Amino acid sequence: MSSAKEIEDSIHLLSKLPGLGKRSARRAVLHLINNRNLQLKPLIEALERTYQSVSVCKICGNIDSQNPCSICTNPKKDSTLLCVIEDVADLWAIERSHIYQGHYHVLGGVLSAIDGKGPEDLRIASLETRVKEGEIQEIILATNATVEGQTTAHYITDLLTPYNIKMTRLAQGVPIGGELDYLDEGTLGTALQARRSL
Amino acid sequence: MSSAKEIEDSIHLLSKLPGLGKRSARRAVLHLINNRNLQLKPLIEALERTYQSVSVCKICGNIDSQNPCSICTNPKKDSTLLCVIEDVADLWAIERSHIYQGHYHVLGGVLSAIDGKGPEDLRIASLETRVKEGEIQEIILATNATVEGQTTAHYITDLLTPYNIKMTRLAQGVPIGGELDYLDEGTLGTALQARRSL
Repeated sequence: MSSAKEIEDSIHLLSKLPGLGKRSARRAVLHLINNRNLQLKPLIEALERTYQSVSVCKICGNIDSQNPCSICTNPKKDSTLLCVIEDVADLWAIERSHIYQGHYHVLGGVLSAIDGKGPEDLRIASLETRVKEGEIQEIILATNATVEGQTTAHYITDLLTPYNIKMTRLAQGVPIGGELDYLDEGTLGTALQARRSL
Repeated sequence: MSSAKEIEDSIHLLSKLPGLGKRSARRAVLHLINNRNLQLKPLIEALERTYQSVSVCKICGNIDSQNPCSICTNPKKDSTLLCVIEDVADLWAIERSHIYQGHYHVLGGVLSAIDGKGPEDLRIASLETRVKEGEIQEIILATNATVEGQTTAHYITDLLTPYNIKMTRLAQGVPIGGELDYLDEGTLGTALQARRSL
């Protein structure tokens, strides 16, 4: 390519983002250059503000411009409820549902023998510390429904059993709008076993 | 969402890029925050340098950190050859093929009655000016093989016919690696009509 180094650098860095490849990064950079004042400049400024002010919450592992984060410091959140999730994207997903009004604990990943991730690589010690403080009455284990996610949930269940806290996990079954024909057998089997009377 | 305004702004602006939606923008921003020094900071700097130094070449419409651009000022490029393309992405695509060694002229779009784009909205007047200067001996019309692209090519052919310059267009046919079974009838028909003897 014979374009300027600045442009190639921008394309290269954008192409390393999840979901973007070389081709879409090129289109994105061209789009930004063609809209330099309406999109490129505001994006640079938003990313710069993010870089300057966003940090990982020392209590729950959320990312926010204040530390502790706005959820940890929100008096309206139920401090007896703690939802354990793998990463911040899961926290955002649950917040978007507007159903949950408790606190969170972001593990920062899952236990994985393949990736060499043990309990000390996750925010598990600080989870136990929060439990020891005594205010939490229920822990919702909302790790992903994957092998690693469930293994991690089991590990945490074993670890926290001595504290005699209610431990729950998300219901499994047919997703809203889901067509049976397109569901995998595992989900369908779980949904059948967990059927509820009307 | 309960995340910081900086994060939401970054997600919102990234989600407006072509090929990115809300969901991939969220993942991208999280990825950037989790790699703030290795990816977020370098990306901000590359975009900032792009914003500061990149402009549209006053001769050909390419974007570059110098003006006239590095292609227009490159003495190794054949100044008797001019390739007319719709936008800068097409210029990059042709440069990547390493076959073409002439100059370019970026139209900045195509004629389109639906979008209300007429000849005065494209870089067509400056194309005619370059032709008038007399150095160009061949014009390759490399607009896209779409209805608008071909209409634009016809318009330019009519406009430049009085100057008695050789006008060519890209060969059409089966793409390298293309399987006949998956080609549309139009391409296959064109490839048959334009068959070459071995």
